[in-house]
Amino acid sequence: MADTTNGTDIERRLARLEQRTRALEDEREVTRLLLSYGPLVDSGSADAVAGLWDADGVYDVDELLMRGRDQIAAMVRSGAHQGWIAGGCAHFVGPPRVTVAGDDATAVSYSLMVTHADGGFVLRRATANHWTLRRTDAGWRIVNRTARVLDGRPESPALLASGVSAPVPDGERA
Amino acid sequence: MADTTNGTDIERRLARLEQRTRALEDEREVTRLLLSYGPLVDSGSADAVAGLWDADGVYDVDELLMRGRDQIAAMVRSGAHQGWIAGGCAHFVGPPRVTVAGDDATAVSYSLMVTHADGGFVLRRATANHWTLRRTDAGWRIVNRTARVLDGRPESPALLASGVSAPVPDGERA
Amino acid sequence: MADTTNGTDIERRLARLEQRTRALEDEREVTRLLLSYGPLVDSGSADAVAGLWDADGVYDVDELLMRGRDQIAAMVRSGAHQGWIAGGCAHFVGPPRVTVAGDDATAVSYSLMVTHADGGFVLRRATANHWTLRRTDAGWRIVNRTARVLDGRPESPALLASGVSAPVPDGERA
Repeated sequence: MADTTNGTDIERRLARLEQRTRALEDEREVTRLLLSYGPLVDSGSADAVAGLWDADGVYDVDELLMRGRDQIAAMVRSGAHQGWIAGGCAHFVGPPRVTVAGDDATAVSYSLMVTHADGGFVLRRATANHWTLRRTDAGWRIVNRTARVLDGRPESPALLASGVSAPVPDGERA
Repeated sequence: MADTTNGTDIERRLARLEQRTRALEDEREVTRLLLSYGPLVDSGSADAVAGLWDADGVYDVDELLMRGRDQIAAMVRSGAHQGWIAGGCAHFVGPPRVTVAGDDATAVSYSLMVTHADGGFVLRRATANHWTLRRTDAGWRIVNRTARVLDGRPESPALLASGVSAPVPDGERA
Repeated sequence: MADTTNGTDIERRLARLEQRTRALEDEREVTRLLLSYGPLVDSGSADAVAGLWDADGVYDVDELLMRGRDQIAAMVRSGAHQGWIAGGCAHFVGPPRVTVAGDDATAVSYSLMVTHADGGFVLRRATANHWTLRRTDAGWRIVNRTARVLDGRPESPALLASGVSAPVPDGERA
């Protein structure tokens, strides 16, 4: 018992547990951030959507490249987006597969855009998403989100593949 | 080394780790509970569905207000619901964004109702869900689930927004 | 203070934390593995898809039974599957409800198959999935995935029910 409870051993086990717990918390925090996007964008919370990104973060959708929070908030406030909300709209983000490496993270997820029309619901779009994030003083923020519609364009499968080949996360047991 | 491994310091680090681990476990347990809804309701497991709620829990859907487990189980046993199962049905609950604060929790999620008809599948409904839960002696249970279809009614975006503005969870690093 | 920080007590608390942290890591690792399926299969990463399974793992879909990695990789390389990718396809796997028990795990999830056709998107299939996994020297791997379409066949609801009645996970507080 003396062998396993001496000061050096305890210090090593505590430090290892602190590292593993932090890895789990990081992954949890990144996941929560990404799962905030849908509820915020579908409620028109323009500043809160923009605040998910880092100050100079990029949101790169097929037809639109937004640089920085002002451009992202402007998209949410646009007539086109407000029209989706008024008619009924779900930006359904699937469970992200997150990889944290130190102060950087990547994630891959699908998203579905569902809209209400003519008394029914339409699946307008299925999209591949690749996210990069970094740890800031205010918590994790999105550095880049690239979204490409899964309509046969080769970029979209490539985006999915790149998101899964990311390095092994912190705290993963060998 | 003596400075970092003395009894008081070890006690403090252990207590902090226990608190952080519990916060992660709570969020995991709430998530597992919410992800049980779909499989249980789509298999007609009426009592198990009702058992996800607290004894006096409320399930508030657009057209139907259920108070307590008996009313929830009755919905699952109803001819209407049994008809969905017989025909083919998926209550697809998306990944919940969970916020735990002590013995209470809130979550926001989307859900899709998909049914089989005429040899194909129909996306019948996209819905905003706001859940409140509490820790009971038997584990986490649902106190209230409010579900509003995303068809343009203003309540639904408001429900999504309210789910994300919840307080900072336990164990979150400053 | 002496009472709570003596060597035996610290040893017990450290060991308990290590066990709880490992339970959280296991569930996280199983979830990440299952969330890798969609991005890998929709990008045609045949060997990587097959590598999610154990060497003699089984993938049992309604119309097709695949035994071992070669048969799984062959499905991904088939003309039929390559045609889906070329046309635009999302194998959207919902958040799995995971139960870990020692070196074994089970999970239940929904999956949606969405394809692009005629300038729009079609929800081709909603499916019930039951997964069993085991811990290998290389990490968690799938032993069996059984998928049944939710078109009214009784096997599909039964599969959903069986996935939720799994034993209480490791690390769950009483």
